[in-house]
Amino acid sequence: MTTNPLRDPRDRRLPRVPEPCALVVFGITGDLARKKLLPAVYDLANRGLLPTNFALLGFARRDWDDVDFAELSRTAAREHARTPWREEVWERLSNSVRFIQGSFDDDDAFDELARTLGELEGSHGIGGNAAFYLSIPPSMFPVVLKQMQRTGMAESTSDRWRRVVVEKPFGTDLPSSRELNGLVDSVFSADDVFRIDHYLGKETVQNLLALRFANTLFEPVWNGAHVDSVQITMAEDVGIGGRAEFYERTGAARDVLQNHLLQLLALTAMEEPVEFSAEEIRTEKLKVLRAISVPKDMARFAVRGQYEQGWLAGQRAKGYRQEDGVAEDSRTETYTAVRLGVETRRWAGVPFYLRTGKRLPRRVTEIALSFRKAPHLPFAPTDTEELGHNQLVVRVQPDEGVTLKFGSKVPGSVMEVRDVSMDFLYGEQFTESSPEAYERLLLDVLLGDATLFPRNAEVEASWAVIDPLEEYWSSTTPFSYRAGEWGPRAADEMLASEGRAWRRP
Amino acid sequence: MTTNPLRDPRDRRLPRVPEPCALVVFGITGDLARKKLLPAVYDLANRGLLPTNFALLGFARRDWDDVDFAELSRTAAREHARTPWREEVWERLSNSVRFIQGSFDDDDAFDELARTLGELEGSHGIGGNAAFYLSIPPSMFPVVLKQMQRTGMAESTSDRWRRVVVEKPFGTDLPSSRELNGLVDSVFSADDVFRIDHYLGKETVQNLLALRFANTLFEPVWNGAHVDSVQITMAEDVGIGGRAEFYERTGAARDVLQNHLLQLLALTAMEEPVEFSAEEIRTEKLKVLRAISVPKDMARFAVRGQYEQGWLAGQRAKGYRQEDGVAEDSRTETYTAVRLGVETRRWAGVPFYLRTGKRLPRRVTEIALSFRKAPHLPFAPTDTEELGHNQLVVRVQPDEGVTLKFGSKVPGSVMEVRDVSMDFLYGEQFTESSPEAYERLLLDVLLGDATLFPRNAEVEASWAVIDPLEEYWSSTTPFSYRAGEWGPRAADEMLASEGRAWRRP
Repeated sequence: MTTNPLRDPRDRRLPRVPEPCALVVFGITGDLARKKLLPAVYDLANRGLLPTNFALLGFARRDWDDVDFAELSRTAAREHARTPWREEVWERLSNSVRFIQGSFDDDDAFDELARTLGELEGSHGIGGNAAFYLSIPPSMFPVVLKQMQRTGMAESTSDRWRRVVVEKPFGTDLPSSRELNGLVDSVFSADDVFRIDHYLGKETVQNLLALRFANTLFEPVWNGAHVDSVQITMAEDVGIGGRAEFYERTGAARDVLQNHLLQLLALTAMEEPVEFSAEEIRTEKLKVLRAISVPKDMARFAVRGQYEQGWLAGQRAKGYRQEDGVAEDSRTETYTAVRLGVETRRWAGVPFYLRTGKRLPRRVTEIALSFRKAPHLPFAPTDTEELGHNQLVVRVQPDEGVTLKFGSKVPGSVMEVRDVSMDFLYGEQFTESSPEAYERLLLDVLLGDATLFPRNAEVEASWAVIDPLEEYWSSTTPFSYRAGEWGPRAADEMLASEGRAWRRP
Repeated sequence: MTTNPLRDPRDRRLPRVPEPCALVVFGITGDLARKKLLPAVYDLANRGLLPTNFALLGFARRDWDDVDFAELSRTAAREHARTPWREEVWERLSNSVRFIQGSFDDDDAFDELARTLGELEGSHGIGGNAAFYLSIPPSMFPVVLKQMQRTGMAESTSDRWRRVVVEKPFGTDLPSSRELNGLVDSVFSADDVFRIDHYLGKETVQNLLALRFANTLFEPVWNGAHVDSVQITMAEDVGIGGRAEFYERTGAARDVLQNHLLQLLALTAMEEPVEFSAEEIRTEKLKVLRAISVPKDMARFAVRGQYEQGWLAGQRAKGYRQEDGVAEDSRTETYTAVRLGVETRRWAGVPFYLRTGKRLPRRVTEIALSFRKAPHLPFAPTDTEELGHNQLVVRVQPDEGVTLKFGSKVPGSVMEVRDVSMDFLYGEQFTESSPEAYERLLLDVLLGDATLFPRNAEVEASWAVIDPLEEYWSSTTPFSYRAGEWGPRAADEMLASEGRAWRRP
């Protein structure tokens, strides 16, 4: 670990440092700010990736002053930081920490925020640049955005930039998403809006692009001529925690499928971008999202599930309907599995099976390409009985890496071929540790690099995939599955009916 | 490890057991018999892979009786066996061990051998079947073969089979090889001749065929459209040991390039056989061997070397010309590197760089396919500075396995792609241990399975590659390299002149 705050020697190329600026976080007292944003700010500072002239402003209802806020931020950062704790880094940072107390409909508070930003411009040389992080429920967006508009805070000029960071969910369907996008775009210009999908900040996701386009081995087989099917899984072992109110209104499809899974699908299926830039990558992703087809036979290929009481890691886990704050007759899904198509020359005919769920046996996110079997095997049928499909698995979490599954001769005096696998573990081959997703994404916001942020059109194209599914589901009840199982039986039957099976990652 | 002599549970499919038969070894007192053949016989017996009615006959000049021979065989087998020692297995085997004392021009001795085989047919039920292993210098072949012909021992009939096993070198050039083949074929019918190239008995070599043809991932890129070049290396750290007399007449090209390296090339480059049978595989290998082109510019692309005094593993190693029995002005090569072409639709234009040498830094045999660089990299040039060619390396020994080298994103806030590798280690993924090459090949001889044995036409096609090289070399002196170095500088320059470099495995 480095002790030079200006330059992290683990970054072998000199990374860019943002211009002087301020980061304003609305909802600074929330979980996300405490566990992710504040530690990310510290880690960036520790790695020398924040500008010398930097200010951190928190906005919340709580009755704090700057000192309370600084102390609380320090505790949060210290507890959750990725990089080693160095008091002097925090000391320097804490000189430019400000807290603004107020509710979102409080004109005075926003006036004070605007005034404070102006002061810091003089006293801390932040150059008028600021990013506003809306770590607040979407229902609060309109009032906060209007306050920013009223006070002129949202306006980028030739002398300064103003950016806004929005967390998913970006609406609940296509119309609401359009409305939300319209609202944000009426206050900020499109280039200044950064929609966070923290999965896109993960190393493996970016590595997927390197894997595909920096190599020559994979791209020749990365198409329907060689790929039999694709499975994209995001499994969680946890339940809904304290988020019943949010989750009851949302469900697994809106919470995960619409954003994380469709983004992973887009990165997996997209064509090579002209260059590795925000605009070009987004363009290619958008083409994929627009090419997605939903199943005609929804009853078979669009499955929802809801977890019942069960056992997980030796502990009894209660059912979803027994969770605090969940209706006894809730029809919200905690699991969903769908079969999508990508109607392009490269992928037509290849099923993309996407699934996500809570209270599944383990936490894992992965993209698995299963290749066609050889058109002809020049071995005796008995020699290859235990030979499955070749698979390439990109693990996003945990144990980020790549696994290749292929057939190999079994040692011995007879010819027998069995599946083996070879692994690349990200953590084993690089001494560098991966930045946290939020660390990476916050830095990108301050740098104005939008490569890893979905744009408007992508969000809307994603909702266009989800809306017909939700419409079908609106008249159905989710299948049940026991906590600790891999989803409802209907999801297994979906694949079995096509002669396939889910991976058990 | 198993204790059931009839069935080795590590072989998941029931392997075939040869018919009742005898194995006759000429030159039983030699190194090969002691270190490889006798232990292989024991291991096969221990695994239950020898027929119940089996006899082992040794033939040599030494003044032994059956008991001496049995005792010596026991010691050799016990010392070098791969599988655990079980006295009862050897006991049973030793009941049918016979020793025939005589020189190769001794008619009486051969008459006695024929008589003994006849007796064993009655007393041990070996059914008249016999394999004759010529573990003797090629110069002795004519006299031994003629003796076998004279006594009628070489004749297969509808009731019994008689096979002969020949060790490389199969001649010293195309004419002598034709002569030798003609001689063997005049005594044994072509199907009964088994030419041992023990490299072909190694698991990885067979695994290469499984890798290519049981999978779908590799074959689509296994051609000149995707492969930039192929390197096949067989490096030894040892010198010539006590083999000066043989080696002085032979050299690295005839000793290794003509057989091992060209066979590995053939397996790497061959088309898919119609089925995994001796005849079909040999047919495809032969097509490759016949398609090999030698370099026009021999001075640049056909390099010979001879080791000088140097250091290896911290020990002083003497030069080749200082070895006992080597001429002071010897021009025999201990290293050779050549650039060959394979003039087929699949491979035209792809250089196959082959090298072998003694007193190189380490013992390693591998086949490395280096893939073309991507035609376009959508990253900034600085992002991919440290990105090499994708490589697929099949390691034959030691640490048998497969390695894939490809580019991966370096963790951190910038896009940077660096080479990483993923490994499949044969020994890690299979609990089964690999049979020794001789164990496998001896069994195949007794089973009459010729899949792993090069046939006449292959041997002659290989000499057709070597002869023009030897002709060019006959007027040159090998470059020198220090023991412990990777060959002479001229070999490095060969690749450098085409913008490539040897792997340092």
